[in-house]
Order: sequence, then C-alpha cells, then structure tokens
Amino acid sequence: MSAKQVVAAYWAAVGARDWETLGSLVAEDVRYEVPQTRERVRGRLAYVRFNADGFPGDWHVEVERITGGGRDAASVIRFSVAGETQPGVCFFDLGADGLITRITDFWPDPYEPPANRVGLTERY
Amino acid sequence: MSAKQVVAAYWAAVGARDWETLGSLVAEDVRYEVPQTRERVRGRLAYVRFNADGFPGDWHVEVERITGGGRDAASVIRFSVAGETQPGVCFFDLGADGLITRITDFWPDPYEPPANRVGLTERY
Repeated sequence: MSAKQVVAAYWAAVGARDWETLGSLVAEDVRYEVPQTRERVRGRLAYVRFNADGFPGDWHVEVERITGGGRDAASVIRFSVAGETQPGVCFFDLGADGLITRITDFWPDPYEPPANRVGLTERY
Repeated sequence: MSAKQVVAAYWAAVGARDWETLGSLVAEDVRYEVPQTRERVRGRLAYVRFNADGFPGDWHVEVERITGGGRDAASVIRFSVAGETQPGVCFFDLGADGLITRITDFWPDPYEPPANRVGLTERY
C-alpha cells in the first residue's frame, strides 16, 4: 500500500472506531505529537487508547484530502462534534514495513485576519 | 519537476523575497485560501503582492518538511518574526504544466490541551 492508501485506511478505521484495525496500521513504537499543545503519545497501546478515550462526544470525521509520496503523507479532515466542524491537519511518516511510525497533528482554529491585510485579500 | 521540488522552489523564492521567481511558479489564475480566516487571493499579480506586502517585519522561513505526490504536496514551515516562531502548514495543487494552481494555508496557534486528556498524553 502507498502512504496515501495507508492514511485512507487509517481514517476509515478512526471513523469506524475500529481500534483493532487502527492498531494494526501503526508501529509498536508509534509517536504522536501535537506541536500546538506539545502533547505526545508513545506506543501503539497508548495511541489506540488516546484515540478511543481522548475525543468525547459523538464526533465524526470526513476526509477532505490526502497527499503523499512513498513513505509519508499529509491529510486534511473535517472533524465534527456537537454541531461544530473544524479542520484537522495530520502528517504521517511510515516505516519500511508500511506501518505508521510518526503522526504530527495540527488543529487550526479560526482567527481574525491582521488589519494590514485589508485590500490584499477578499473574504469568502 | 515533481510537486515536492516545485514546493521547495516556492519556499526558496519566498525566503529570498524573489517575487519574480515566485510569480513564475504559480499559475496566472492561482487561488490562495486561508480556511481559518476565510481570506482568499486570486490571480498571480494579487498573490505576489499579498506575499510582498501581507507579512510585515523582518521575517524568515525555514522549511521543516515537504511531502508530496505527482500533482500535489504539503509543507510545514517555521515562520519567524520579532523573536517569535510559529508553524505554517500549506497544501499545494499543481496543474498539468507544473504551475501551482491552488494554495491552502493553515496557521495553527498554540492552545491548552483539553482537561479530559490528562493521563492520555505526556507533554514535551
């Protein structure tokens, strides 16, 4: 499987809360990091538990795009819970065996554009 | 050039404030969007002007990673200005001629992790 296909399978497993399949896609020593909060999770069991328990509510995920090469990929998802939707951006690194070894997760929140940009952009 | 190489050339041009080269890498009808602010810039001239005038200060960019396939790619950069550094994440789509047709830009700010995650993650 290409990195893109592995990431598509990853999101399908997350969306289905299929933690067994999720665990089978990540390396035993997988490392997950959120640069914005400086949170880190290390190891397959801890990572599956983080996914199962770390996101309360009846959320669902929709994959917007996946781009990738041979051993790494990046995805944009829409994460929805309680009527709110926000984008999530993940980068994935894979080992030679095709398992995901590293996940870097970003959650970009809305913000007001800087005042100096008025006239340089339009809004949609 | 692969999408990865085009994106590497893109960041080299931005970092050098080489607006002529930047313009040569994007399509005439390039579209730039920031989902967090819902800002949009359309067209090569407007996009080069946005880059030249939209980011005040003596900033510099450092490319952390680029992942990509044939016609699209994603990058993580560190954007530094006035002693502060923040990550920037961009997705790029390329046309058949190798020019960048679409740029989707995210600026993920730091935030405090949700309380329910204590015990599921460590901090670094």
